Amino acid sequence: MRSSAVRVSAIFNSKKFFVLLMSLILFSAAFAQLSGATEVNKAGTDFLALMPWPASVQLEAGKFRITEKFQAGGEAQPGSRVFKAVSRFMSRLAGRTGLFLEQDYLADQSLKPETRLVYKYQRTGQLVPGEDESYTLSVKAERIELSAATDLGILRGLETLLQLLSIDDQGYYFPCCLIKDKPRFTWRGLLIDSCRHFMPLEVIKRNLLAMAAVKLNVLHWHLSEDQGFRVECKTFPRLHQLGSDGMYYTQEQIRDIINFASDLGIRVMPEFDIPGHSTSWFVGYPEYASSPGPYRIERGFGVFHPVFNPANPAVYRFFDRFFREMAALFPDPYMHIGGDEVEGTHWKENPGIKAFMKKHNLPDNHALQAYFNKEILKILTKYNKKMVGWDEIYQPGLPKDIVIQSWRGTQALVDGARKGYQGILSSGYYIDLCESAERHYLNDPIPSDSPLTEEEKKLILGGEATMWAELVTHETVDSRIWPRTAAIAERLWSPQEIADVDDMYRRLETISVQLEELGVQHLRNQRMMLRRLINAVNYSQEEFESLLKLATISEPVKGYARHSLGKKYSSLSPLTRFVDCCFPESLEGRKFCKLVENYLNSARKENLKEIKNYLESYKKIISPAVSLSGRVPALKEIVPLADNLRETVLIMEKALEFFEKGHRPEAEWVKFNQQRLKEAKKPQGECLLSIIPAAGKLLEALEKNHGK
Amino acid sequence: MRSSAVRVSAIFNSKKFFVLLMSLILFSAAFAQLSGATEVNKAGTDFLALMPWPASVQLEAGKFRITEKFQAGGEAQPGSRVFKAVSRFMSRLAGRTGLFLEQDYLADQSLKPETRLVYKYQRTGQLVPGEDESYTLSVKAERIELSAATDLGILRGLETLLQLLSIDDQGYYFPCCLIKDKPRFTWRGLLIDSCRHFMPLEVIKRNLLAMAAVKLNVLHWHLSEDQGFRVECKTFPRLHQLGSDGMYYTQEQIRDIINFASDLGIRVMPEFDIPGHSTSWFVGYPEYASSPGPYRIERGFGVFHPVFNPANPAVYRFFDRFFREMAALFPDPYMHIGGDEVEGTHWKENPGIKAFMKKHNLPDNHALQAYFNKEILKILTKYNKKMVGWDEIYQPGLPKDIVIQSWRGTQALVDGARKGYQGILSSGYYIDLCESAERHYLNDPIPSDSPLTEEEKKLILGGEATMWAELVTHETVDSRIWPRTAAIAERLWSPQEIADVDDMYRRLETISVQLEELGVQHLRNQRMMLRRLINAVNYSQEEFESLLKLATISEPVKGYARHSLGKKYSSLSPLTRFVDCCFPESLEGRKFCKLVENYLNSARKENLKEIKNYLESYKKIISPAVSLSGRVPALKEIVPLADNLRETVLIMEKALEFFEKGHRPEAEWVKFNQQRLKEAKKPQGECLLSIIPAAGKLLEALEKNHGK
Repeated sequence: MRSSAVRVSAIFNSKKFFVLLMSLILFSAAFAQLSGATEVNKAGTDFLALMPWPASVQLEAGKFRITEKFQAGGEAQPGSRVFKAVSRFMSRLAGRTGLFLEQDYLADQSLKPETRLVYKYQRTGQLVPGEDESYTLSVKAERIELSAATDLGILRGLETLLQLLSIDDQGYYFPCCLIKDKPRFTWRGLLIDSCRHFMPLEVIKRNLLAMAAVKLNVLHWHLSEDQGFRVECKTFPRLHQLGSDGMYYTQEQIRDIINFASDLGIRVMPEFDIPGHSTSWFVGYPEYASSPGPYRIERGFGVFHPVFNPANPAVYRFFDRFFREMAALFPDPYMHIGGDEVEGTHWKENPGIKAFMKKHNLPDNHALQAYFNKEILKILTKYNKKMVGWDEIYQPGLPKDIVIQSWRGTQALVDGARKGYQGILSSGYYIDLCESAERHYLNDPIPSDSPLTEEEKKLILGGEATMWAELVTHETVDSRIWPRTAAIAERLWSPQEIADVDDMYRRLETISVQLEELGVQHLRNQRMMLRRLINAVNYSQEEFESLLKLATISEPVKGYARHSLGKKYSSLSPLTRFVDCCFPESLEGRKFCKLVENYLNSARKENLKEIKNYLESYKKIISPAVSLSGRVPALKEIVPLADNLRETVLIMEKALEFFEKGHRPEAEWVKFNQQRLKEAKKPQGECLLSIIPAAGKLLEALEKNHGK
Repeated sequence: MRSSAVRVSAIFNSKKFFVLLMSLILFSAAFAQLSGATEVNKAGTDFLALMPWPASVQLEAGKFRITEKFQAGGEAQPGSRVFKAVSRFMSRLAGRTGLFLEQDYLADQSLKPETRLVYKYQRTGQLVPGEDESYTLSVKAERIELSAATDLGILRGLETLLQLLSIDDQGYYFPCCLIKDKPRFTWRGLLIDSCRHFMPLEVIKRNLLAMAAVKLNVLHWHLSEDQGFRVECKTFPRLHQLGSDGMYYTQEQIRDIINFASDLGIRVMPEFDIPGHSTSWFVGYPEYASSPGPYRIERGFGVFHPVFNPANPAVYRFFDRFFREMAALFPDPYMHIGGDEVEGTHWKENPGIKAFMKKHNLPDNHALQAYFNKEILKILTKYNKKMVGWDEIYQPGLPKDIVIQSWRGTQALVDGARKGYQGILSSGYYIDLCESAERHYLNDPIPSDSPLTEEEKKLILGGEATMWAELVTHETVDSRIWPRTAAIAERLWSPQEIADVDDMYRRLETISVQLEELGVQHLRNQRMMLRRLINAVNYSQEEFESLLKLATISEPVKGYARHSLGKKYSSLSPLTRFVDCCFPESLEGRKFCKLVENYLNSARKENLKEIKNYLESYKKIISPAVSLSGRVPALKEIVPLADNLRETVLIMEKALEFFEKGHRPEAEWVKFNQQRLKEAKKPQGECLLSIIPAAGKLLEALEKNHGK
């Protein structure tokens, strides 16, 4: 049962399509709002790559010099969160500077007269929404003080301090400053989908470390899906035994992750998606489904029929025992029950369910799901968990401590908040869609024109980036998460007014490299993946670098387009092709487009030489890239992409010539080339050229201002 | 208690110095023996990158075409070793080709008429020395048959098949062939030291995958040391609680690794190094030491005083309970007890031990250790384990099923074998010394001039590469293991006659890239580590590429030299510097030196242009590399290295000019430049330039054949 046409098309009738649509609409709205926002005072801080930008940064004269004698100390005991965090801090500092720090920071952080970084906090923080994460960081030439109400604040401050590391002629230093910082939102999450593709433990760990570096504090762990049930379940062992292809986390591993996350000040909220998205549960336990089965693990992607049977009392006994076990395993106060995309066919086909609906006066599937949710809520409440679910779980009469996670958009959050419900935003943060960091960055959980009262606004707890895993594996998932998620992290932590897109990108590139020391593979796997594809042929260094350059200025098609370009993806499909080697957003492409924009907007057209250099560098790679790709079957699909690059460069060169000479092209010429560009814009190998918008801008300008 | 001068110098009075010395001697001997070896018939197979090279490869006409319909099948059941291996094979094949294979290889490998790769084996292999790992692989245009006596043979054969993957105009294929293969040695190991630096689980897993790819079959896991005790011990929990800084493997994790390795046909043999190298044990249990303590985890490197007290009967009760637990945890029939480098000071200082020695007629420390070992042997025997230890454990009267692992050299193995003892070779395979692959490759456990009889030769079970971890972390360990260990794997698997060094290097580069898909980071971490060092300054792409190029032609100093060049290393020292970014062996440097050698040996001197191109490329990088390094404190130490490169290039250019013009330099000139080269040879930043031997050869030739 591979994904049928029905299933593929189902994507476009589903949440995902809606998500896409909403994100388009929201983006325009958000952009309009934020582009006019007033800039906060960041005078003189342009050289700093802090991210998320703190609530208040006051630069002072002077530098704190870092030598091998540098010592950190406070009252934390070995084994405690802060002690470990300081050990990591020292190790990373040594790693970046090559300094042989003398302190045995693994064993001794006692306060001594020579201690130069002194940390102080009042209590151990709780991993719950609303906990105090604020800190004050004072860097003076002789001494650094980091103080906070909770140890969580210390963790956040240590990340800021490490980001302050600077270099001058005399060596390494921290610039003197006073930073007072606290998060704007208390719920700053990343969803990792371990189901569509299983994510080995180290993927989770390295991403937790990276999350902590940008002050995210919730791992929303998507643990059950049609394609796999990923947790060892002792009460119902056939769940993981038959529902995972052997790819699941043991309970010890789960506890290991929870402890690891806790050390980083990160909550781990599990999601068990019910009643839909549940095929894998029924492989071992078909008796709880709405249709008799048999079931097998789903390999395709989309929205599928299998669904729990809300009319079967045994289902609730099952969930009682299931959630009793999981509530004990996961200490987080929240339990996410998914609740999205219930498709309903199997409900309709089951006479028992029809009768049940009639008997209980449930007019439609939504009412039936509401009934189901209420029963589940009782169970969760019994085991001391608060319920979280996607928009669909909302129904009148739910208790006010539930949280609604919105993929529908800020309006849904507004509606919820007005009724007194807490919400978190994920619409606009779907990082699997390969959109730009800018787009996510300008998407605000509480837009500046929000109609909510101050009290109501408090119900918007924050947001979550969502890393759905249909089209990523352990090799590529990091490059889909980072660095763009750092921009989302800033949106959720920093003051609303921090919204200068160019400055965000400036800092993003530095942060991106810093994240590598934590193990995330977003940058380093690109070359590795390209090497794999060409390893069976002989090639020159020039050919390889050309292919790489082509990847650097290409992007995967956006949204869900990869599902409709000919390849039928399943969880076994290779995600090792050229398109998988491309980053979701080409930072070079963005720079180039900016450059052309500036050229068009500036009177003196001084960027011309730089633009021409770029174009020259692109021209140079075409032949080698085509030659290499032509020899490798897996790369043949991108030969047309290189051809499109050639076309685009030619068009741009010609267009620039008009500008340079002050000539005016024939309208025919513009039309003709717009048509050529339209062709060049078509995806090839599921990729787009990131520089095409620049070409479009040039033609547009020629069209509008003939010969200006 | 940091490493004192005594300790650092101790290195040079120790095993390590001996290892170094022996490897130098052995290398010369091995080279003399092997360079004259007769080549086996490999006619027409030059395009294949098989490694280890099989016992017999017969190429045939025709190609097996790989399409998306390709299916693999046999009688293996889901969950079995072969079933999982075939799943991995299919996934890697899809990854390399981008083919959307239609088979659901995770769930169904049943034999169907359309199955194209058919596997057959007779029984499940045992993970013990001597087990049958042979296989026969027959590739015909329409069908591939892989057959073996055991499932282990199937695993080995699948790796060979994947290495056969080829490309032509029509797509991907396997060349038709008949391969009959079996290992020369049954014990083909890699030692990983998880103590000097803790190696997270994923390091072990990815290296196990890479080991399997080159048919290694023993993970020798070094689990206790002065610097850390790395296994959860339930009987004596203070071992891991106080002896590891929290960095240890839980028993579930150990079992996970053992199962993971077993799936790959790899044994896991633990080493608990006693009675010396044991400081970390005494942090929690000082009562078993020879000196009262207190003890703390050692941060320095070398040979230290702490040692178990063989005169204390409680020590043997302790080990009885300890090994009872560990014998149950590790299923391997062998238990390695280390036994190396017992330093003896604490024994001498303890009057009780002196009295004990007198009473038991033990004349010296060696006799005392022999007494200790005999007691330990009784315990191991009780728990059904055979003993393995380093050379020092040997003493007359030991049972014949023990195994002696030699760091002293093949002579020790010969001596042992003549007395009827089994041995494995590690001398010459110390990959932590940053020697060339060639050197390890030509080091044979049974050299062709071995004085042993055929019966005695059977006692030489094989060998092990040893990855001691004083100077590696999880970031760099892979680059110290790979790709060089693939050459050792070939020495241990392939027929003795397979010893063509150039052909080995040709295949090594291809295999190296293939290993990346298994997760090893040996190639991809280099750029990452360089980026980290320069991230806090602005730099151009040219500067970065120049720095990288400098790293590409540089190597860390050899042997233990890093410990005597000014930096005092501890387990907390940063291993993130330029030297750590360099590969142990520069493959480009080797190629360049070869080229110069060929130039000097050839009549027509046709390589000249190529050599000049290399020199040009080196000249180009000097200024940018110096400029960048000069701005980064951590890189200042390599500015002189770049200066040395400038000197070397100048000398070579001038020398080549003499050759070109047929001129004869003054003897003075040669002398002067030899002196300059001697200066340029000195380590800078603990690095050497790999191209210097080529310059030396040129000057030598000018000196010998004036103006030839």
